[in-house]
Amino acid sequence: MPAYKAPLRDFDFVLNEVIQVQNVISTLPGYEEATQDVFASYLDAAAKFCENELAPINRAADEEGCSFNPADHSVTTPAGFKEAYQQYCELGFTGLDCDPAYGGQGMPKVLAFPMMEMQCSANVAWSMYPGLSHGAYAAIHAHGTDEQKATYLPKLVDGSWTGTMCLTEPHCGTDLGLLKTKAEPNGDGSYSITGTKIFISAGEHDMSDNIIHLVLARLPDSPKDVKGISLFIVPKFHADGSRNPVFCGALEHKMGIKANATAVINLDGAKGYLIGERDKGLACMFTMMNAARLGCGMQGLGLGEASFQGALSYARERLQMRALTGPKAPEKAADPIIVHPDVRRMLLTQKAYTEAGRAMTAWLALQLDIEEKSPDAEARSQAADLVALLTPVAKAFMTDNGYTAANMGMQVFGGHGFIREWGMEQLVRDCRISQIYEGTNGIQAIDLLGRKVLMDQGQKLRKFTKIVHKYCEANGGDSRLKDMAEAVSKLLKDVGDVTMHVGMQSMMNRDEAGAAATDYLRLIGHLTYGFFWLWISKTALDKLDAGTGEKAFYEAKLTTARFYFAKLFPEVHSLLVTLKAGAKPLMELDEAHFAF
Amino acid sequence: MPAYKAPLRDFDFVLNEVIQVQNVISTLPGYEEATQDVFASYLDAAAKFCENELAPINRAADEEGCSFNPADHSVTTPAGFKEAYQQYCELGFTGLDCDPAYGGQGMPKVLAFPMMEMQCSANVAWSMYPGLSHGAYAAIHAHGTDEQKATYLPKLVDGSWTGTMCLTEPHCGTDLGLLKTKAEPNGDGSYSITGTKIFISAGEHDMSDNIIHLVLARLPDSPKDVKGISLFIVPKFHADGSRNPVFCGALEHKMGIKANATAVINLDGAKGYLIGERDKGLACMFTMMNAARLGCGMQGLGLGEASFQGALSYARERLQMRALTGPKAPEKAADPIIVHPDVRRMLLTQKAYTEAGRAMTAWLALQLDIEEKSPDAEARSQAADLVALLTPVAKAFMTDNGYTAANMGMQVFGGHGFIREWGMEQLVRDCRISQIYEGTNGIQAIDLLGRKVLMDQGQKLRKFTKIVHKYCEANGGDSRLKDMAEAVSKLLKDVGDVTMHVGMQSMMNRDEAGAAATDYLRLIGHLTYGFFWLWISKTALDKLDAGTGEKAFYEAKLTTARFYFAKLFPEVHSLLVTLKAGAKPLMELDEAHFAF
Repeated sequence: MPAYKAPLRDFDFVLNEVIQVQNVISTLPGYEEATQDVFASYLDAAAKFCENELAPINRAADEEGCSFNPADHSVTTPAGFKEAYQQYCELGFTGLDCDPAYGGQGMPKVLAFPMMEMQCSANVAWSMYPGLSHGAYAAIHAHGTDEQKATYLPKLVDGSWTGTMCLTEPHCGTDLGLLKTKAEPNGDGSYSITGTKIFISAGEHDMSDNIIHLVLARLPDSPKDVKGISLFIVPKFHADGSRNPVFCGALEHKMGIKANATAVINLDGAKGYLIGERDKGLACMFTMMNAARLGCGMQGLGLGEASFQGALSYARERLQMRALTGPKAPEKAADPIIVHPDVRRMLLTQKAYTEAGRAMTAWLALQLDIEEKSPDAEARSQAADLVALLTPVAKAFMTDNGYTAANMGMQVFGGHGFIREWGMEQLVRDCRISQIYEGTNGIQAIDLLGRKVLMDQGQKLRKFTKIVHKYCEANGGDSRLKDMAEAVSKLLKDVGDVTMHVGMQSMMNRDEAGAAATDYLRLIGHLTYGFFWLWISKTALDKLDAGTGEKAFYEAKLTTARFYFAKLFPEVHSLLVTLKAGAKPLMELDEAHFAF
Repeated sequence: MPAYKAPLRDFDFVLNEVIQVQNVISTLPGYEEATQDVFASYLDAAAKFCENELAPINRAADEEGCSFNPADHSVTTPAGFKEAYQQYCELGFTGLDCDPAYGGQGMPKVLAFPMMEMQCSANVAWSMYPGLSHGAYAAIHAHGTDEQKATYLPKLVDGSWTGTMCLTEPHCGTDLGLLKTKAEPNGDGSYSITGTKIFISAGEHDMSDNIIHLVLARLPDSPKDVKGISLFIVPKFHADGSRNPVFCGALEHKMGIKANATAVINLDGAKGYLIGERDKGLACMFTMMNAARLGCGMQGLGLGEASFQGALSYARERLQMRALTGPKAPEKAADPIIVHPDVRRMLLTQKAYTEAGRAMTAWLALQLDIEEKSPDAEARSQAADLVALLTPVAKAFMTDNGYTAANMGMQVFGGHGFIREWGMEQLVRDCRISQIYEGTNGIQAIDLLGRKVLMDQGQKLRKFTKIVHKYCEANGGDSRLKDMAEAVSKLLKDVGDVTMHVGMQSMMNRDEAGAAATDYLRLIGHLTYGFFWLWISKTALDKLDAGTGEKAFYEAKLTTARFYFAKLFPEVHSLLVTLKAGAKPLMELDEAHFAF
């Protein structure tokens, strides 16, 4: 496994040259200090931290895993995790995009996302400890009382306390309406909470002084469905230092992210405090779901990047066979395998997916900032709609592509890819969960097509396609961009048609939307990546035309864009056919006749 | 993880109803005893063995793995492995398709392959111990002297000895021309062999009395390329019981198949015996490569089936959400997830790939039997060509689809799929290596397009496409088969065009073939599966028309065929586009500019 090297030049390209985030950030109140120079210094510091502290402990931590001591319900994280976290807190990164009123640095999300990508590349299991904390911070910041905020936020911001999200139970994950955890009023405004939660990431560990669990539970007289769920703050330790009976009962044995403590959490009359309105717990959770799902997408992105770096380095060094067109390194025993077209196909797939994903997340993170901070109500609403529409795409498309990329990186290594010491198979195992949690990718697809597109008759979709259409119109005249712009424009039209088609079909039979959803999400994914590759290409051409140097860098962007449109984007041809085949081929087989 | 249940009804369907293997087997001399009844009793016995002995020890063996004792170079296999192997030998399965002259049962390969599928489903890591032995048997049977055969074959056939294939070295896998292991003549007809081999499956273990290593090595005066490699028999123990210095130096730590001992084998002047002609070792190895690669494809098939069984059972039991079209199990807290279109999409994908793959391998195994036993030289040559053409397709297409299927099975389980105890993620890890070993799937693709198709101007391909064309012609008139036959006929034409196109292009630039190969293999894969789904459908319709009963079984075949043509086969639309995009998008990026 080669050393991880943060793609700082590409962050700079995406943030400052393609999307030019400063044009927007400088208009958002509260971000006056978030200048390009400040961004650069944060990114540099984070790069050093990820390269030097997180990446080197990633492999050993996978082998060591977390250990659970049933005697005192404690969990020990792998060697170096605690120390790295300590350093992370000292660098102020736990509070990067947090409210200065509680000690945060007040930086925009568009800076937080590239920093998250680096963590995911370097050590995704570690990244989840601060990641979950940030979710708890966001929930309390959005829905807590002033007293709750004053009690919990400063500690979550400085990192001395961490947080969790306790949603899933053994019999329900997707379908939270079924949840059984009970919250009974104690009479003093607090609640007594009893139940079992599973799959609680960072649920117990030795990295912080206290753990603040955010727990979904049901009040005795609440409806027995999703409308009867409330959200509670359940600290591991009370203010007086006494232990709350919220205990880790076991750690899961998993395929990957073994260094993250995935806990069974038993609440045995634990004292909790209602946050937000009663019975509105799910809504409270969902206010931070976009950021959480985008964060999950970053895992696919970061792991794809890590796998690309490993595979590229190996492909340049490993000598095997001669190029089909004759020796390229005649002085060596064989040519480096990067001369072989099929190896290049895998490397370029990794590269093309990763670089487009990086641009998409930067742009989406910027929309999150606009949604939160813009003084212009219309801009906020437009940004909110774009975020709502594209978050499921970012989550599912980036994690599916990340898994593909991680598998290709492993394939480039041949037999060595299967050997743990090389580190490539760990990336595959670590990536696999990102397609499942935070809502499976199948659920993301239904969310996109059902809730985000069909439910508002395509209004959100049109806000996005209008942007894409305008961009194609504005740049299709350049002969060097014509083919790309035409491909994207054609897909825009096809997306319009197929959306209409599926919408009509699903009015007659709602299974039609369910059957179309996964293909539809990939279609929108390619529309989005096609748009960003066009934008990246336009940016690169402008730089080349201006002769500002770095010719090879900008030309590589154009070459990668051409690869994307030649070899990956054409997936849309199959998707359009399978989409139109409808629900019948999925639904007509009787459940009893799947096997004999 | 539900108990594994061998798909005996489907084996019967494929062997006796679709391909009707008895019509052919009964014409092959030496197979007089291989009647349908005999097949059924072998399959029943193998099913019981796989269900009751192999499947139950699969999960624990993954956790336990193999252990290596450096003090005496010994390897201990997981609990139950040795006992299961003992029973397997007693059942006579080690000699199933082996020569009766050496104690074998003399059964055809078309019976051996379904038996192999069951082993792969139940316990793929275990299946490799007898699997590798069989390869050693085949090599010695094909190339050994009478004395060598008399010495080694009876023991390999009765299973008291096992075998290995020692090809790979640290610096060469695909490119065996680079191998460094030396063989120096001892003067008495034997050789002294020195070198290091890696990735030796079943390289050392405690299941047999002796291990017969087949080792590729180079004589001192031989050419320094693939034309200077010879094959040697290197027994662990000599006839007098003395230990030969061929030692296990370590076991690899792997992503999956952890219960198979993947050994580093150090040869330190080990005594070996030349087998076959000197400098023709690679050719000796390649005579058994078709069977080995088809065997590797069986791993994808068997693991896909195992994952399907697990996912189907879970999808019927797990309650989560209501069907989009309204409750299907109103008496329960939620509907079983098999009501959801996207869950069905995953189950049907597993099912459609597995059932077509089962038919393809039965048909190919029958060609292996014809190639070996037919008294008709033309039939032998035709069969040999079909095997040569379709073996890389079977290996790569079945393992890629098997990996897809295993991942889908895991996805059906949601978060539980990621937890080791459920057994679904093990299938993913165990399957992953099948895309890499026995020649990576990229190498299979080059073998197909370069060696098998372009090198003989498409002669082998035409032998296959003629069969498919005739079948479409003969059955396209049935209105119930018309759409399928037309889809396959259309693809036949497209394959012809694209083969010609790539052939012309690659005469000018050989990278064109390398760039097209992976897409081309998937195209031929769908041509093959399309043909088999048509054949399966025709068979099912005939049975339904005849009113012989089992209506649901035959109708499920038709439904699954329609799913395949509606949702999987359309991948060809994208493949035809990406194929025609050619090599330039892969080759134009300078090696130095992949990253900055």
